[in-house]
Amino acid sequence: MINYPHKKTTTIKHSNQQVGRQQAVDFGRRGMSFESQIVKVNEYYLASQKAVIHKKPTPVQIVKVDYPKRSAATITEGYFKTPSTTDFNGIYRGVYVDFEAKETTNKTSFPLVNVHAHQMKHIFAVAEHGGLAFLLVKFSVLDEIYLLTSDTLLSFWQEYEKGDRKSLKREEIMTSGYLVPSNTYPSVDYLKVVDEIINNKAFKDGY
Amino acid sequence: MINYPHKKTTTIKHSNQQVGRQQAVDFGRRGMSFESQIVKVNEYYLASQKAVIHKKPTPVQIVKVDYPKRSAATITEGYFKTPSTTDFNGIYRGVYVDFEAKETTNKTSFPLVNVHAHQMKHIFAVAEHGGLAFLLVKFSVLDEIYLLTSDTLLSFWQEYEKGDRKSLKREEIMTSGYLVPSNTYPSVDYLKVVDEIINNKAFKDGY
Repeated sequence: MINYPHKKTTTIKHSNQQVGRQQAVDFGRRGMSFESQIVKVNEYYLASQKAVIHKKPTPVQIVKVDYPKRSAATITEGYFKTPSTTDFNGIYRGVYVDFEAKETTNKTSFPLVNVHAHQMKHIFAVAEHGGLAFLLVKFSVLDEIYLLTSDTLLSFWQEYEKGDRKSLKREEIMTSGYLVPSNTYPSVDYLKVVDEIINNKAFKDGY
Repeated sequence: MINYPHKKTTTIKHSNQQVGRQQAVDFGRRGMSFESQIVKVNEYYLASQKAVIHKKPTPVQIVKVDYPKRSAATITEGYFKTPSTTDFNGIYRGVYVDFEAKETTNKTSFPLVNVHAHQMKHIFAVAEHGGLAFLLVKFSVLDEIYLLTSDTLLSFWQEYEKGDRKSLKREEIMTSGYLVPSNTYPSVDYLKVVDEIINNKAFKDGY
């Protein structure tokens, strides 16, 4: 069970914000804002009937619920659970799309500790079954967003798991990933890049 | 914001179980057990590399979180939110699969009040984009499970929204749906029926 300081929503009242940030992650509140950007562009895609892609709810282990008379059930004890899959999935142009969005304040590399092993396992499984699975990485200081497909991630992740690598260098990401246009309307129009990938059949389409 | 008594997990300690059940739903604890069956068969599908289909976490509106020193963040105030999509989605044979699972103790019909309007809207949107979207309905007393595709649901739902229909008769479901084999290993092997639908191209595959 892990505490996710970067998953805070604006509705959360922090009784002690600092204590919740002890983990060695270099994306805190900013991760939230990137996630919100993706949620927003997904709403645009949905409204314009371009795609149906949603963020999954934050997984919560519900321990105690009170049922006050004549009002809504209140969860009075719950814990953040480690997500077993990625944050976003849905359908675009008949293709199953599945991805995780991560942000770093680091300017030169993306530390792979930011991604959970089971999330990567999920990404590779989806790709095996003919889905388009990827990671969106935002360098928040540089305001650069890249899309890295599962194919690209596989060898990097194998090196990480062997202990031969701790991060993806920005140069590696620039070379092997796709730059997502960000100064567009809608902002973070990642389906532009997905179009390119689908058109080039740069993923395993079905069995 | 709606209170979902049927979404209780076994870890919940009920301070007052009855009060939480005031809604006019005729599937309480049983809904949970059908959901668990689906979660279980999905685990089997995942382990046997047949499909990658997961249940989405229960959507929770987190209001207050405490960060005690040296222990996990504790949600001390939260509420169940109305789900904006279906409970299950994933990929099978390269096809995006999306569905909701509902159970009724009614022996003659399935009351449509059990399905949220935005869930049905989601099911139709998914189908429009080339996904395979459906409803799994379990008549728990009869131990019968049926799969109803979005195509089938559309006209029924339109009648329901117009006020011309309140439920699906079991006979209608038997005629227009697919019976899911339940005395199998794994139990509730719904992908058997999905195979049939994919093989017969009985859904709109891509744009």
